[in-house]
Amino acid sequence: MFLHKIDEDLALKRIEYTDAEELFELSDRSREHLGTWLPWIHFTESPDDTKTFIKGCLQRYAENDGETVCIMYKGGIAGVIDFHELSWSHKRTSIGYWMGVNYKGLGLLTRSCEVLFDYAFNQLGLNRIEIRAAEENLKSRAVPERLGFVQEGIIRDAADMYGNYVNHVLYGMLAREWKAKA
Amino acid sequence: MFLHKIDEDLALKRIEYTDAEELFELSDRSREHLGTWLPWIHFTESPDDTKTFIKGCLQRYAENDGETVCIMYKGGIAGVIDFHELSWSHKRTSIGYWMGVNYKGLGLLTRSCEVLFDYAFNQLGLNRIEIRAAEENLKSRAVPERLGFVQEGIIRDAADMYGNYVNHVLYGMLAREWKAKA
Amino acid sequence: MFLHKIDEDLALKRIEYTDAEELFELSDRSREHLGTWLPWIHFTESPDDTKTFIKGCLQRYAENDGETVCIMYKGGIAGVIDFHELSWSHKRTSIGYWMGVNYKGLGLLTRSCEVLFDYAFNQLGLNRIEIRAAEENLKSRAVPERLGFVQEGIIRDAADMYGNYVNHVLYGMLAREWKAKA
Amino acid sequence: MFLHKIDEDLALKRIEYTDAEELFELSDRSREHLGTWLPWIHFTESPDDTKTFIKGCLQRYAENDGETVCIMYKGGIAGVIDFHELSWSHKRTSIGYWMGVNYKGLGLLTRSCEVLFDYAFNQLGLNRIEIRAAEENLKSRAVPERLGFVQEGIIRDAADMYGNYVNHVLYGMLAREWKAKA
Amino acid sequence: MFLHKIDEDLALKRIEYTDAEELFELSDRSREHLGTWLPWIHFTESPDDTKTFIKGCLQRYAENDGETVCIMYKGGIAGVIDFHELSWSHKRTSIGYWMGVNYKGLGLLTRSCEVLFDYAFNQLGLNRIEIRAAEENLKSRAVPERLGFVQEGIIRDAADMYGNYVNHVLYGMLAREWKAKA
Amino acid sequence: MFLHKIDEDLALKRIEYTDAEELFELSDRSREHLGTWLPWIHFTESPDDTKTFIKGCLQRYAENDGETVCIMYKGGIAGVIDFHELSWSHKRTSIGYWMGVNYKGLGLLTRSCEVLFDYAFNQLGLNRIEIRAAEENLKSRAVPERLGFVQEGIIRDAADMYGNYVNHVLYGMLAREWKAKA
Repeated sequence: MFLHKIDEDLALKRIEYTDAEELFELSDRSREHLGTWLPWIHFTESPDDTKTFIKGCLQRYAENDGETVCIMYKGGIAGVIDFHELSWSHKRTSIGYWMGVNYKGLGLLTRSCEVLFDYAFNQLGLNRIEIRAAEENLKSRAVPERLGFVQEGIIRDAADMYGNYVNHVLYGMLAREWKAKA
Repeated sequence: MFLHKIDEDLALKRIEYTDAEELFELSDRSREHLGTWLPWIHFTESPDDTKTFIKGCLQRYAENDGETVCIMYKGGIAGVIDFHELSWSHKRTSIGYWMGVNYKGLGLLTRSCEVLFDYAFNQLGLNRIEIRAAEENLKSRAVPERLGFVQEGIIRDAADMYGNYVNHVLYGMLAREWKAKA
Repeated sequence: MFLHKIDEDLALKRIEYTDAEELFELSDRSREHLGTWLPWIHFTESPDDTKTFIKGCLQRYAENDGETVCIMYKGGIAGVIDFHELSWSHKRTSIGYWMGVNYKGLGLLTRSCEVLFDYAFNQLGLNRIEIRAAEENLKSRAVPERLGFVQEGIIRDAADMYGNYVNHVLYGMLAREWKAKA
Repeated sequence: MFLHKIDEDLALKRIEYTDAEELFELSDRSREHLGTWLPWIHFTESPDDTKTFIKGCLQRYAENDGETVCIMYKGGIAGVIDFHELSWSHKRTSIGYWMGVNYKGLGLLTRSCEVLFDYAFNQLGLNRIEIRAAEENLKSRAVPERLGFVQEGIIRDAADMYGNYVNHVLYGMLAREWKAKA
Repeated sequence: MFLHKIDEDLALKRIEYTDAEELFELSDRSREHLGTWLPWIHFTESPDDTKTFIKGCLQRYAENDGETVCIMYKGGIAGVIDFHELSWSHKRTSIGYWMGVNYKGLGLLTRSCEVLFDYAFNQLGLNRIEIRAAEENLKSRAVPERLGFVQEGIIRDAADMYGNYVNHVLYGMLAREWKAKA
Repeated sequence: MFLHKIDEDLALKRIEYTDAEELFELSDRSREHLGTWLPWIHFTESPDDTKTFIKGCLQRYAENDGETVCIMYKGGIAGVIDFHELSWSHKRTSIGYWMGVNYKGLGLLTRSCEVLFDYAFNQLGLNRIEIRAAEENLKSRAVPERLGFVQEGIIRDAADMYGNYVNHVLYGMLAREWKAKA
């Protein structure tokens, strides 16, 4: 109901309880593709698990500690973007995201991020957005790279991915850079 | 950012932390007019009080126990509509609302309610919406009356309003009635 | 131990943990008869469930938010009366009740309510007591009717009873009416 | 309302919110006399403090972890008896008490304890009641001594009373002894 | 890592999460011997149960409400000593302990207690340490007796041990006595 | 009491409540020097604030979510080292630290870190330790540089330091590197 329309087909909305079933189904269909980099998919076995996830998102939002947004494409959920490790005192946040298996390669994620970053810098007044992506997860890295983020470093062995440590590439974008780009 | 547009000027959005200052100012300007029927205005002395109110709304929403919506008019907050006493097992909710002092008589509230009730009956799947208004609060009673609610009863001495008990008129609308009207 | 004696056989007491077993047995024997209007009976499968119910009652009481009273007849629990939706600022409460299967038709409930309402109006200082009963639940409606409550309205589709919506009749009694009656 | 009558003048009841004002006044009038052995009196400055105390009692009771009883004399609160350090697995409790300044020397406390101990041993099924009293608090020690408790020991330096350590005399009564006495 | 060395072989340390597995194994090997007086051993079925115990210890410690210390012998956990019922206002604590089956008769417990009591009286500033041991548990009673505690009384029927009540012998040591001994 | 001795003068211990006064005094004496990079010093106005800090440390430790260690020099507290953002699933932690004003330049911090990192890699089984230091805080950066950490990147505008954003240099050390160094 409460949408930010980007174009005829693409829109954003905050996650809500009524998304549980549809979001679970999207996760479920995307299980194989998500599993490479997102281990939580293995603990997502029913819409109830997704409902628990949504509850966590909304509680965090009620604490003013991050928010979770659904990417809507042609009326259905196509993916999720998440603000986490939000610091109001330092005016920065980290961003995570995933797309359902059928919605990749359409540029939906990059365009959605672009809109959300406008919102984060201009409306929320944040100064820095950070994206961390596994070094070998080229699709994930493509988002900050396309959007002009600066690669600030490599966090070595940042995550244990099924028994193997993987590096994270650290990308940052500052408010003044984003506004200069516009 | 996340809006439901009703027309060029009118839109709805869920309440959020960034509304605190503007919403406080609207309450503050409407102090005299709200005070007749809404005693909470006397405990609303600064934007921090409004922030605490917003936190309560968001926590309740995170519990799937009601939601609070701002009426946006020409980009500013004009009023608030609230779902409370929500029962998912009995598929009903009660609705409350107030408008800022400068936004009365424009029909904004009735049109906003109409849209929200569509949402409640069609998207949330509720079966019954209830409105209770003080018997002498004719402006408040006008909303359910204009929208075709059935007057179901009079709750005598329902509220202690500054030392005097007032009756509440009880109005109800059922999903099947709402859909028949459409 | 802590009783309010009404006559030789009839008394009231606040619910307590030591009632769990006896209260469960009463519920269990009354299963069929209670089930028509009180769906909670289906989730009451052992004295532990009743103990959880009692804990809830006592926690609510510790929050000054309602109380639960057992009707004692000849030393055994015969039924339960409950103050809920208590508002100290508006000085009103709603009342619910049920009787065990063998204790119906003896007038115990009406007499117990009468005593409790004296207590509510005179000792607790409440101004309004409300009773809501399903329209077709004539036995439940008989209580407020016998005690002179005013029928204030019909809450249509107030509850989903096993898939069918039922209306609630709304009854109210005000302190001044009660005291005039005495 | 919910009383255990001992005789025409004397009764017991569980503490409740509506006692706050009267209980505060009793404490307040008894300030000097209570202060010798009960340091909490110095932190009891208004009925709100007493209300907070009552809330604590009721929460503890809701946890099935002790209860607090008022001694009623001629319709007014005369004193308080408290079950604390209750252990259901070991079936024992400790008892504390105090009387208001005008209610001393009438034997009310001893008789009230006697009734409560019947309740504790026979209805609650406890096996042991313990009383600890400061060695020099002869009035407090008189209660277990009159009731036939066994002096089991002296807990040296058990409490810091305004900078001086005092010994506690430990008294115990077992269910079988109590029942043999009767 | 953070140890208090007593001699080459003996040391003390506060309990920590990394002890869970080793402590469980010690409990498990000592099951028969502990079971006589410590019923908790029957609910300790896996290292996860021990982890839950450790969490409880650390939470209590974080509340400044007691601490739990491991006796380390030749680098392994030999037993546990616990401060409970700690009262900062009255400057006293109660002490409990148990030794693993292979570590008995070496004098480790008495020497460890001696060191901990120095710490309790001198560093924590406590005035009284209390030990309660079942009357027939001669090994447990030997600790306070060897260390010069005063036998202050017998708490009759203090605990229900598998259906039989047992007496506890109450021992106390005061700071001034401990310091005089040194 | 529970120490890890590094040499005659230098030792480590977990923070505890009894440190509150001494730690406050150290902070207080170091106010000017700490204030440049550690804004919390401005909210540390009494030993009670330090006690609140210690409580937070111990609660986090009880959640198995990080620990806080005091550097002890000649028997007094010289500084603090903190494990935060601990992830057991990814086996990494971030480290922070500060030294009191009189204890700088003695190499105490580097040596203490070295010992703690041995503990973290060998006993806790962590795989990665991260240090973030403000780019211009050369003294803080000297620690990871002396200990052979790899500079992995620059987090631009990582913190708002009194109205100016400062960059953080990101350093990382992996278990295999640390062990190879030894």
